[in-house]
Amino acid sequence: MPRNRPASYPLLLLLLALAGAAAVAGRRGPAPPANATTADSPVYLWPLPRSVASGSRTLTVDPDLALDPQGPGGGAPALAEAFQRYKGLVFAPWAHAARKRGGGAAAYDVARLTVLVASANDTLALGVDESYAIYVGAPGGVNAIVGGAIIEANTIYGAIRGLETFSQLCVFNYDTKNVEVRNAPWHIQDAPRFAFRGLLLDTSRHYLPIDVIKQVIDSMSFAKLNVLHWHIIDEQSFPLEVPSYPNLWKGSYTKWERYTVEDAHDIVNYAKKRGINVMAEIDVPGHAESWGYGYPKLWPSPNCTEPLDVSSNFTFEVISGILSDMRKIFPFGLFHLGGDEVYTGCWNVTPHVRQWLNEHNMTTKDAYKYFVLRAQELAIKLDWTPVNWEETFNSFKENLNPLTVVHNWLGPGVCPKVVAKGFRCIMSNQGIWYLDHLDVPWEDVYSGEPLDGISDKDQQKLVLGGEVCMWGETADTSDVLQMIWPRAAAAAERLWSPLEAITAQDVETTVLSRLHYFRCLLNHRGIAAAPVTNYYARKPPIGPGSCFVQ
Amino acid sequence: MPRNRPASYPLLLLLLALAGAAAVAGRRGPAPPANATTADSPVYLWPLPRSVASGSRTLTVDPDLALDPQGPGGGAPALAEAFQRYKGLVFAPWAHAARKRGGGAAAYDVARLTVLVASANDTLALGVDESYAIYVGAPGGVNAIVGGAIIEANTIYGAIRGLETFSQLCVFNYDTKNVEVRNAPWHIQDAPRFAFRGLLLDTSRHYLPIDVIKQVIDSMSFAKLNVLHWHIIDEQSFPLEVPSYPNLWKGSYTKWERYTVEDAHDIVNYAKKRGINVMAEIDVPGHAESWGYGYPKLWPSPNCTEPLDVSSNFTFEVISGILSDMRKIFPFGLFHLGGDEVYTGCWNVTPHVRQWLNEHNMTTKDAYKYFVLRAQELAIKLDWTPVNWEETFNSFKENLNPLTVVHNWLGPGVCPKVVAKGFRCIMSNQGIWYLDHLDVPWEDVYSGEPLDGISDKDQQKLVLGGEVCMWGETADTSDVLQMIWPRAAAAAERLWSPLEAITAQDVETTVLSRLHYFRCLLNHRGIAAAPVTNYYARKPPIGPGSCFVQ
Repeated sequence: MPRNRPASYPLLLLLLALAGAAAVAGRRGPAPPANATTADSPVYLWPLPRSVASGSRTLTVDPDLALDPQGPGGGAPALAEAFQRYKGLVFAPWAHAARKRGGGAAAYDVARLTVLVASANDTLALGVDESYAIYVGAPGGVNAIVGGAIIEANTIYGAIRGLETFSQLCVFNYDTKNVEVRNAPWHIQDAPRFAFRGLLLDTSRHYLPIDVIKQVIDSMSFAKLNVLHWHIIDEQSFPLEVPSYPNLWKGSYTKWERYTVEDAHDIVNYAKKRGINVMAEIDVPGHAESWGYGYPKLWPSPNCTEPLDVSSNFTFEVISGILSDMRKIFPFGLFHLGGDEVYTGCWNVTPHVRQWLNEHNMTTKDAYKYFVLRAQELAIKLDWTPVNWEETFNSFKENLNPLTVVHNWLGPGVCPKVVAKGFRCIMSNQGIWYLDHLDVPWEDVYSGEPLDGISDKDQQKLVLGGEVCMWGETADTSDVLQMIWPRAAAAAERLWSPLEAITAQDVETTVLSRLHYFRCLLNHRGIAAAPVTNYYARKPPIGPGSCFVQ
Repeated sequence: MPRNRPASYPLLLLLLALAGAAAVAGRRGPAPPANATTADSPVYLWPLPRSVASGSRTLTVDPDLALDPQGPGGGAPALAEAFQRYKGLVFAPWAHAARKRGGGAAAYDVARLTVLVASANDTLALGVDESYAIYVGAPGGVNAIVGGAIIEANTIYGAIRGLETFSQLCVFNYDTKNVEVRNAPWHIQDAPRFAFRGLLLDTSRHYLPIDVIKQVIDSMSFAKLNVLHWHIIDEQSFPLEVPSYPNLWKGSYTKWERYTVEDAHDIVNYAKKRGINVMAEIDVPGHAESWGYGYPKLWPSPNCTEPLDVSSNFTFEVISGILSDMRKIFPFGLFHLGGDEVYTGCWNVTPHVRQWLNEHNMTTKDAYKYFVLRAQELAIKLDWTPVNWEETFNSFKENLNPLTVVHNWLGPGVCPKVVAKGFRCIMSNQGIWYLDHLDVPWEDVYSGEPLDGISDKDQQKLVLGGEVCMWGETADTSDVLQMIWPRAAAAAERLWSPLEAITAQDVETTVLSRLHYFRCLLNHRGIAAAPVTNYYARKPPIGPGSCFVQ
């Protein structure tokens, strides 16, 4: 290939590129490819299941693998759909060849996947039973009671998590052109450590098309994340249709960067089929400037466009309308009301707001509290559990509705204070779990522990889990998946797998190998996950090489 | 949204981010979103058709739009499949809502798309007729003979290009929730200026999974590119299965970074359905070190692993075996034999090669020529037209087989020399059309003119077209689409649209608006095209904002 001029780089990248080039040059000579042994390494699973036992047999899997649905929930259409989806993932990207073999199904060790689902209830909610067990073995094997593959779960959502794990056990063998399960028989028992395993997506700083949100949802399901925190609206743009106040989405960047009510339903349904809840947010009163493009009366004045006008009933009428409309779209029990970064300075200098504060004998701090609590009441009336960013707790914990889930972000050590006061908590410590902080290496993400500093068992139960946040200032369709992955996977394992299993591993050897493998799996499934060993998130690979070491 | 710490940037990015932040701050206040007018701008097409006439009516399109296939080629399964694909693109990502309306089909202006294909021959080859005409109008309109929409083409490939254009005419109206064709009636006559409109993809520096190659092929069809130049193998890795020499793909990075014969067939078929030819390459003798991992005898010695051993018949037996196997996969008439960057120094110092040179009274330059010509003969015997990088022409044009297509890359002004000698030429001047040159702005890509310096009409006909090259040193699954788009679109229009139409436009106004629009269209279709106005390719957006201005 012609290359007499190197690609151009800023200085730092150039130095790294040269280092990369040297590494490549080192591959010259008769040595086999540097990573040949990777191909013989053990089966890798991400996130680690709760308990795993494996053997030493290799089983072949029939490209015409059949679903054998059992139990009251086995007949759910969503399960059949999930089976077809995973069958495609196993046999399509790794293994187009396998499909060509045809005939001879009897020759395969695993020709049928039995999926037994105990409950016919397909309600998806926080704390839904996601546990499952898998057995994969061959008839007549020493540890095998029966041949074939079985997934047992209490709900279809457990079964869907089991299908993901099963798909990771299935690997294409490029020599035999079979999909194989190596190290069988497998006995896996699994369940998540935390009920809330979230990813925030910000569609206000950049609009993300429906197709892109669906790619994100797909990729979340691969890592067993289960809450999409949809930060739909912020000060920059208001993309969502709100039938009660149809001018609101005039605050979208353009007429083409919008979500209809039907789009939002589509997202919720698509996510549900993958066992993913959608937690919507309106971030009031501090991140709502875009609301005023459609209804300027929401602004205290043309010179004070944020926070929303606390003195006006219209403000709360609009919030109530938005919440009522959104309640029809978002069945998840939690709703995020924001409440962070409320800079009330201009309330004080806007005459009618100033007058209202005086009349009500309020400081601006009081007014901030008043605003958040009134919004909470509206959400609670709609049978929603309110979630608020931690400033609300930090500012007026004594007044916060006891239902409130406090969402940490400012730093470490917040959840211990939150649960000590009896509130529930979600950890998103920005130092490690904000994905737009590009200088945080995956090891730091992996180190994030929601229960740090909380020894009381009852208090531990108040920690719902954690969430990685993909703020959108520099994330659009071009780079959002690259920014999310692979680092979100590090948090996903922390949130799913047993603490003992996580701490028992050596981060720089066994965890790193599995993470490389998982990143390459994402790539194989068409997800633009970035190299794992990037010195900096979202960077391109620094030179030629295998996915499994970059 | 919480943000008390900005994302980290290298210095240069930081400065730009600050500039971006300032621009964002400027949006505060009661002004409407900066881009509101974009929503009312005229219909944008990319690449520009040969001739376009439009009106001022807005027509609604039925979400249950029916295909009405006509003519000898109308019944082709590939056409029905393409119609369904485009129906999905028009009605799904922009317009989930439209599908919900149901009933009342009679109320839509365009309920049927007639596609008339004159020929039943579905052979895809260089120069296949890609012309088409479109008419979209309403019954009773002043310029409308009949209502509805019609695409006429001589081949299904012309019809597929027409479907792409039709899909770009269809825009979702978020107010009425209809898909509409604005500015109707439309009369479009279109055909490409050049027969060869290529994109090179390099799967040796980084393996690209099948799913990712398919995403690239999809995106190529959106820009009416028609040749995927698959640079499968290079010195770093040999991912392709070659049944005649089964050890060759031991040169893959790992066992999981490989293409089976079936995978390659899959790619060719997938591309064909989108009117895209696949031109495969083996880059001999200078970019073939990875061949020796499977067959070390192909290396002159363990200390001289490149170029391939010119003195050994085994070398040519292997090339012959590869070509025979590849001929069964790649029906396209052109095959690329590389021939660039052949540094013959170590031939001279390897004793048995040195001896062979002496016996044949050859300099290393002679041996280079001998190698290329012998490889060409093998390809020609298999009914392939050989393509070679320009060094072969620069070094021994007088001996090059007259069939040879010379592939320019080193700089400007090469095709004029090539066609003056009667050879055909493909332009890929690296200064503007190498996509790994990140500092080339889209305007420079757009300025590339394959006919520059060629005034003789007969010589002009020898220029087949051009190709943008996505070399893979720093391009893997995470960033390859981001590096290809939007700049490849600039070349795609240059290669498709009439020269007069291109030169008549103002690059910084009308072309830029359309390119923004096309980039957002790619994003809507799930393709990770990067911002247009990047100061540097592959960079994230520098701050919040609309896709249509970034």
